[in-house]
Amino acid sequence: MTRIFDEETIRSALDPAEIVAPIARGFADYTAGRVDVPPVGLLHFEDPPGDVHIKYGRVVGGDTYVVKVASGFYDNPSRGLPVSDGSMLLYDAATGELLAILLDRGWLTEVRTGAAGAVAAQHLAPAAVESIGMLGAGVQGRFQLRALAPVVACRRVLAWSRDPGRAAEYAAELSAEGWEVDVAATPQAVAAECSLIVTATPARAPLLQAGDIRPGTHITAMGSDSVGKQELDADVLAAADLVVVDSTSQAFHHGECAPAHEAGAITPADVVELGAVVAGTHPGRTSDEQITVADLTGVAVQDLVIAEAVYRRLTGRSGGPRRR
Amino acid sequence: MTRIFDEETIRSALDPAEIVAPIARGFADYTAGRVDVPPVGLLHFEDPPGDVHIKYGRVVGGDTYVVKVASGFYDNPSRGLPVSDGSMLLYDAATGELLAILLDRGWLTEVRTGAAGAVAAQHLAPAAVESIGMLGAGVQGRFQLRALAPVVACRRVLAWSRDPGRAAEYAAELSAEGWEVDVAATPQAVAAECSLIVTATPARAPLLQAGDIRPGTHITAMGSDSVGKQELDADVLAAADLVVVDSTSQAFHHGECAPAHEAGAITPADVVELGAVVAGTHPGRTSDEQITVADLTGVAVQDLVIAEAVYRRLTGRSGGPRRR
Repeated sequence: MTRIFDEETIRSALDPAEIVAPIARGFADYTAGRVDVPPVGLLHFEDPPGDVHIKYGRVVGGDTYVVKVASGFYDNPSRGLPVSDGSMLLYDAATGELLAILLDRGWLTEVRTGAAGAVAAQHLAPAAVESIGMLGAGVQGRFQLRALAPVVACRRVLAWSRDPGRAAEYAAELSAEGWEVDVAATPQAVAAECSLIVTATPARAPLLQAGDIRPGTHITAMGSDSVGKQELDADVLAAADLVVVDSTSQAFHHGECAPAHEAGAITPADVVELGAVVAGTHPGRTSDEQITVADLTGVAVQDLVIAEAVYRRLTGRSGGPRRR
Repeated sequence: MTRIFDEETIRSALDPAEIVAPIARGFADYTAGRVDVPPVGLLHFEDPPGDVHIKYGRVVGGDTYVVKVASGFYDNPSRGLPVSDGSMLLYDAATGELLAILLDRGWLTEVRTGAAGAVAAQHLAPAAVESIGMLGAGVQGRFQLRALAPVVACRRVLAWSRDPGRAAEYAAELSAEGWEVDVAATPQAVAAECSLIVTATPARAPLLQAGDIRPGTHITAMGSDSVGKQELDADVLAAADLVVVDSTSQAFHHGECAPAHEAGAITPADVVELGAVVAGTHPGRTSDEQITVADLTGVAVQDLVIAEAVYRRLTGRSGGPRRR
């Protein structure tokens, strides 16, 4: 029988902190080729403007497969609706039975995207972080910071937004959750103080140049999720000692690696997948002086992992990978 | 708010006969380029064996878009489950809101596939049909025959199946519904008597040759829905005066046109889309002596049309195309 769960039920069932380790294993499965993730399906709308992404996949030999439909309709705020929406369908991989419909309204996507940032920080941030830098003060900027709580001891945060009012709101909201958040006037001011920086903006032109970045800094770039977006200058990726991506093919198609590749700053041979670092087949950061960049575009295996985790929590039934 | 409807509710809301005209308009929209139907998404499973198809699309400028997930898991009968399963999701094309989840378990796919056969017969069958021939006595063979009721006056049927027991069951079941069904010993015996033939088998080698087909016959071939399937010899398509397809790209990829093209019997320039015949931009059959073939592979616009129709029936709300 198909179980149907609404956003409130899903939120109450899953602590975002518990999903970080499963997401890390998902990246390792993806990089090791144990995951079947076909290209993303896309519908594009002009009037009103919107995009629909259909992500689907499975761990090979796993018990389940997942189909996620996620949308962004950019005029929604004028109707009093959030831009993003989405839901996930979890199926039995032995019979095709629809096990569960997760009407999470996009919450699970925000959580699994935050968890990916936590995995990157866990493996790539320098040993001592005195301040966390946050570029972007939107919904995902909140999920990113909260996701760092279990993996980074630091609670000092310097936040910047193109809109100072939004940065101030962000600072007030996250300070109330136990962080010490100050607002920075520029991205450069953030880079001057912070050795762990997260970028979560819809920028279409670089916010940071190589000259802004101190030795020992790790940057996780989350914003570039479609062609034309860019948060880091190509010279940042060229200057980095290590560039890590969630998916090489996606990163060079629509991540930070795409414009950097076009600028001649980087090639696919120069990057390492996060799953290799998680699995230990690549050492990741090897000194506190290195500059590292993680370019994350979002992979369907994250949806698979979080849908299975929620299903297990809500039903007590295993939807987890069945290893053979 | 997302409405959720189960199979029983959906079945009670939709009379398959009423969907034939909307499906015909859907084909016309598709052929005229008014429909955005990206390539089908696919997941393939080895153990147990199964295939999942994700079909999605929208009428450009329409009020809704649809995502269908349909599966075939071939060991299901040994678990007491049907091979096929599926459901459809209907969304608001202005906001991305999930309007309805149609848990039809594949019923809507059977109905819309039957309706496509009715559209083909309506436009391509000769004026006088004395006997309808049915090759294949499975689930879709039943939907095909029932779908012909409103468009063809003839009630005499000659049915053949590779399994004579299944043909006998088919004859008994459909006779009880008002048809006069006899069982034929061979596909050739069917072709010798019938001027409207429907093939709905999983055959992987031709059942009919050109020499079997009488002048004036129309054949609707439904079975070839994936690479490697074939019901008609290439010489049948070569001998036909008119070959009509639902989708040229799909027919030459995995329909009857694919092996016929490989055999040099036919090229894409030789076929006409059903939507052109429906719209009247192609005359279709022009004499009762012509041999015509309709090669139908199933197009996502059919899913869009039937999902919208069910939604309208169940809610009273319009999900129909919004013409500009």
